[in-house]
Amino acid sequence: MLDLAAVTAAQARIAGRVHRTPLMSSTMLGERAGVTLHLKCENFQKTGSFKSRGALNKLSRLDDAARSRGVVTVSAGNHAQALAWAARSAGLACTVVMPKTASPAKIGASRGYGAEVVLHGTTGLEAFAHAHELERERQLTFVHPFDDELIAAGQGTSGLELMEDAPDTDVVIVPIGGGGLIAGVAVAVKGLNPRARVYGVQPEGAAAMRRSLDAGHPVQLDSVNTIADGLAAPMAGAMTYDIVRRFVDDVVVISDDTIAEGLRELLVYTKLLAEPAGAAGVAALMSGAIPVKRGERVVCVVSGGNVDLTKLATLLGQDRAKPLGTS
Amino acid sequence: MLDLAAVTAAQARIAGRVHRTPLMSSTMLGERAGVTLHLKCENFQKTGSFKSRGALNKLSRLDDAARSRGVVTVSAGNHAQALAWAARSAGLACTVVMPKTASPAKIGASRGYGAEVVLHGTTGLEAFAHAHELERERQLTFVHPFDDELIAAGQGTSGLELMEDAPDTDVVIVPIGGGGLIAGVAVAVKGLNPRARVYGVQPEGAAAMRRSLDAGHPVQLDSVNTIADGLAAPMAGAMTYDIVRRFVDDVVVISDDTIAEGLRELLVYTKLLAEPAGAAGVAALMSGAIPVKRGERVVCVVSGGNVDLTKLATLLGQDRAKPLGTS
Repeated sequence: MLDLAAVTAAQARIAGRVHRTPLMSSTMLGERAGVTLHLKCENFQKTGSFKSRGALNKLSRLDDAARSRGVVTVSAGNHAQALAWAARSAGLACTVVMPKTASPAKIGASRGYGAEVVLHGTTGLEAFAHAHELERERQLTFVHPFDDELIAAGQGTSGLELMEDAPDTDVVIVPIGGGGLIAGVAVAVKGLNPRARVYGVQPEGAAAMRRSLDAGHPVQLDSVNTIADGLAAPMAGAMTYDIVRRFVDDVVVISDDTIAEGLRELLVYTKLLAEPAGAAGVAALMSGAIPVKRGERVVCVVSGGNVDLTKLATLLGQDRAKPLGTS
Repeated sequence: MLDLAAVTAAQARIAGRVHRTPLMSSTMLGERAGVTLHLKCENFQKTGSFKSRGALNKLSRLDDAARSRGVVTVSAGNHAQALAWAARSAGLACTVVMPKTASPAKIGASRGYGAEVVLHGTTGLEAFAHAHELERERQLTFVHPFDDELIAAGQGTSGLELMEDAPDTDVVIVPIGGGGLIAGVAVAVKGLNPRARVYGVQPEGAAAMRRSLDAGHPVQLDSVNTIADGLAAPMAGAMTYDIVRRFVDDVVVISDDTIAEGLRELLVYTKLLAEPAGAAGVAALMSGAIPVKRGERVVCVVSGGNVDLTKLATLLGQDRAKPLGTS
């Protein structure tokens, strides 16, 4: 069961093996948004995103037989890198299936951590199917990128830390792909302070969780299309959907242009490199998509920082005339 | 006199008004350089560079008559922003002379902090001369960007902090423009641990301190040409030259290409945005220009992070095939 105790147990299990990432402030962006703003810097986490937390927690609970056979997963990138890194540190074999469209930096990084990377298909769904084939053929343990209670409990340790560092937080804003991060964070934050609000953010082109909430059940998308490859999940998880439905105050949807502007504002005003997924929370806040009250204490989870420099150069070249939230 | 006591006094004077910037680690870059690497993140400092430290320290020592008349300075950017910011917080009028070639972001930021910005000439020397004219005409107090003991003592508080956080540091690497930062840092570091080594870094196109050491006296350059506008000082200071000569182990010179690669590696491996000046220390280390021994504990001062996104996009687009320090 995914609850505060599960997240606390994960925290004890992975302590000292991942970074306790800093909670940084941004006076400039906070003043413009009318709030006190802190950033939970998961872009500084091992392997460049929060995903290392869940991967380590999951692997630490495998039995010896499963450990000896190894693990397989599917990921556009950050979960792949994180599982590869965690598997190497735990001495396990790791196979990663990625769509052929995955970011070259993330493919290279997964191989760099010693994983076997299998490029298959052009969509997340095709890659998912192939990973399950390898699971059966090679008797590997499939490690789901988000719809797994141990994975989500690991990601939730980020929420525990931010509440330890800023216990009077009013609002936490979290990017959503498949929902593993927000599921763990929401359970942790609400477990510690039921009055704190938790909002999720999805890109227009990959809003599976928003669509699922609207439909009343988890849905699959026919296609995804967003610059935020870290959020390009083709579906909401069954478990993560249930947790989001129960614990998350709302899920908002923003455009890729807004996400790109959030990335640029993080660079200019905080000197932090976020990948588009990692900038989505700040982008949503700065664009006015999140219902915050003046003076509230807001934490945005900057979920990752893995972005190809060529892609980054393109995003910087599309600078808008006016920053978000000004007129 | 610029000594450890002066830096300690500055620290007490500016405490709570500037950030105590974090000392971050980079396992990836450190392993490649064969050292334990920490980064002193002055890019997170108020106004985006270490310059706020010295400016606050200087202004806090002005008498009432000088305060009522206001201050004038000359700067390609970071000192201008910092003095404007410090003057506003102290309730003083501030005039800044910048060459017409200054970065638009830095001009805009200085105006944003309430300074009167006077664009004059195309070189630092022309701007210097004009600032001294305004000093006389308007009876303003000239605040030198680097060749001033109170300014340098303020910058040195960064060195005090890094030694407090990592007392067993073997090597500190500091970018040099006019020498204010390294003068203060060297006095602080050597004052706390005389066996620690301090190295300075200059770009090929603005190596006034290196040329001064070679000549045996402070020299002026006929022209400067570097992507690191934060290091484009046309001269070494008399005071800073004397301190560097006595306290700094060596000053190395690196190319603009190496600096740009250092900036890119900081983005990719640490998720930190440094301006070219701020990346120079890491660039020098990674390119092998600094004589470090295997396993030494090294701190690079990432001196600032103020860079136009259009300039940044250009620097990202010039990606090299191989990272620094690999073959």
